[in-house]
Amino acid sequence: MKNQIITLNNAPKISSYYSVVGHKEKAGPMGDLFDEYSDDDKFGKDTWEKAESEMQYRAVKGAINRAGLRDSDVDLLLAGDLLNQCVGSNYAITNFDIPYLGLYGACSTCSEGLALGACLYSNGIVSKCCAVTSSHYCSSERQFRFPLEYGGQRTPTAQWTTTGSGAFVLGNEGTVKITEVLFGKAIDKGITDINNMGAAMAPSAIDTIVRYFRNSNHSPDYFDKIITGDLGYEGSEILKDLLLGEGIDIRKNHTDCGLMIFEREQQDVHAGGSGCGCSAVVMAADIIPKMERGEYKEVLFMGTGALMSPITLFQGGSIPAICHLVHLSAG
Amino acid sequence: MKNQIITLNNAPKISSYYSVVGHKEKAGPMGDLFDEYSDDDKFGKDTWEKAESEMQYRAVKGAINRAGLRDSDVDLLLAGDLLNQCVGSNYAITNFDIPYLGLYGACSTCSEGLALGACLYSNGIVSKCCAVTSSHYCSSERQFRFPLEYGGQRTPTAQWTTTGSGAFVLGNEGTVKITEVLFGKAIDKGITDINNMGAAMAPSAIDTIVRYFRNSNHSPDYFDKIITGDLGYEGSEILKDLLLGEGIDIRKNHTDCGLMIFEREQQDVHAGGSGCGCSAVVMAADIIPKMERGEYKEVLFMGTGALMSPITLFQGGSIPAICHLVHLSAG
Repeated sequence: MKNQIITLNNAPKISSYYSVVGHKEKAGPMGDLFDEYSDDDKFGKDTWEKAESEMQYRAVKGAINRAGLRDSDVDLLLAGDLLNQCVGSNYAITNFDIPYLGLYGACSTCSEGLALGACLYSNGIVSKCCAVTSSHYCSSERQFRFPLEYGGQRTPTAQWTTTGSGAFVLGNEGTVKITEVLFGKAIDKGITDINNMGAAMAPSAIDTIVRYFRNSNHSPDYFDKIITGDLGYEGSEILKDLLLGEGIDIRKNHTDCGLMIFEREQQDVHAGGSGCGCSAVVMAADIIPKMERGEYKEVLFMGTGALMSPITLFQGGSIPAICHLVHLSAG
Repeated sequence: MKNQIITLNNAPKISSYYSVVGHKEKAGPMGDLFDEYSDDDKFGKDTWEKAESEMQYRAVKGAINRAGLRDSDVDLLLAGDLLNQCVGSNYAITNFDIPYLGLYGACSTCSEGLALGACLYSNGIVSKCCAVTSSHYCSSERQFRFPLEYGGQRTPTAQWTTTGSGAFVLGNEGTVKITEVLFGKAIDKGITDINNMGAAMAPSAIDTIVRYFRNSNHSPDYFDKIITGDLGYEGSEILKDLLLGEGIDIRKNHTDCGLMIFEREQQDVHAGGSGCGCSAVVMAADIIPKMERGEYKEVLFMGTGALMSPITLFQGGSIPAICHLVHLSAG
């Protein structure tokens, strides 16, 4: 993999997918597209963290059921989330008698899981696997920013963590294939503002996109959509501007899951949505169904993740980021 | 993979390895075996978290150099650690212009990285990769238990987090191969005592070992060593006892990295060593060199990880655990 694009000889198909969201996502522009939601964001549990695990559990169960499979048909679960020690995933996965690979890629985890699962499928390590990720507004705010009760004022560049979980079963059934994968590098451009994740993550997306187009036979025009995970309004503008300087114009076909999931003004989300769950539920509820219906044929999906912790920021550290790329082809 | 043991047709070799430890590990029974150490555990940095990243950086650099490679020869870094958002790894990896897959398996991360890297090598996704993990006593105590300054009394079943990082380059050079892999499941048996990780993790090791021997042609006698990651004295006894009930006797050839790294009484470590770095440095400094010298031929290595967070314990949650298995063969 000298040029680092991994072309999958035996491309896995997305056999099924399932999305679970909270009330604010349900009230947004994509509300009708999600498979399941909860009005109170607690999903019948007594803590936000348990609610997040419950979402992941329902997403995995939903995806496995929709694929017409039993748990025992699935060789591997690939899961991760934003919580300390990835407990959203860990506790969800105890409900399944399936081997488990824990991932940490912050908000890039949806693309990390899809990319890795696709590699393991491609040459027969697994015959079916399920990638899942989640985020929850309330567990994230407490952990990364302030307790909700504090009522802190949000800055204009702040993003709103999506409450949601999306799961994907990869196997030999389906119409959407993962044909190429490009793993991201940890990129640190010195951004230190925890309220401007878009700016912190954009450089990693630029690195991955530039590596892709410099080494691929395809140009941006080849793709119906070039979709980043959750750069939001701030990061998306930085991305498009700086890519122009590299001679890569994605302005026509770029979108970002963080721009799609909420109504910016009416839902008061400032710079857009974010979180592992954001790209997972947008891909599961909107993009992949559109590919299945023939509305899009070629899609580049790039999850972007900010790799800091509150402690490293308190210690004056900057925010490294990463972006993993997945090339999806329909038909 | 119906029986879930993955036999690697194209088995990767451990081309090099490198271990970096703190002063207490240097003073222990394996002190002379480690490649590098720091007297003050700060490794020239101003925080414990940065020290942990520095250890990982040195371990990866050391392993790549020893293999006679340049960074650009390595296709992928697989890394993870115990810190919130895996920042030990994230900041270390920004020093390398190499694609990065972030993992979270708690103290099982060394075996998770080796197992996953081996799968990706076997099917040609990567031709060389490097798996690394770390832990640091001081960053772990603050995060999981108490600030060091508090001077809390340790319980008899408490383990001592190893300050160390171990890195392994997988490729086509070397005498020790990874021939089989078995991914663990998240197992929760209801243990809630954060000072008894051995008891929490033993059930996951039992699950993995039972699955291995029920589905393998090998018996425990086939292996020169059956090595768990960091069950310590408490967990190792539970493991051996409960396995006897399953008709599997590993008493003759079992050992645990947490038993090896410290002198229990003189170094006042209670139930032994622990942490991602524990099994990584013991494998890199002792087990794999012994396999290269022909002292051991067949080794089962099983990293064990406890998958809780302090928050889930405060919320009354129990401690799920996971154990990934790697079968190493020399010659």
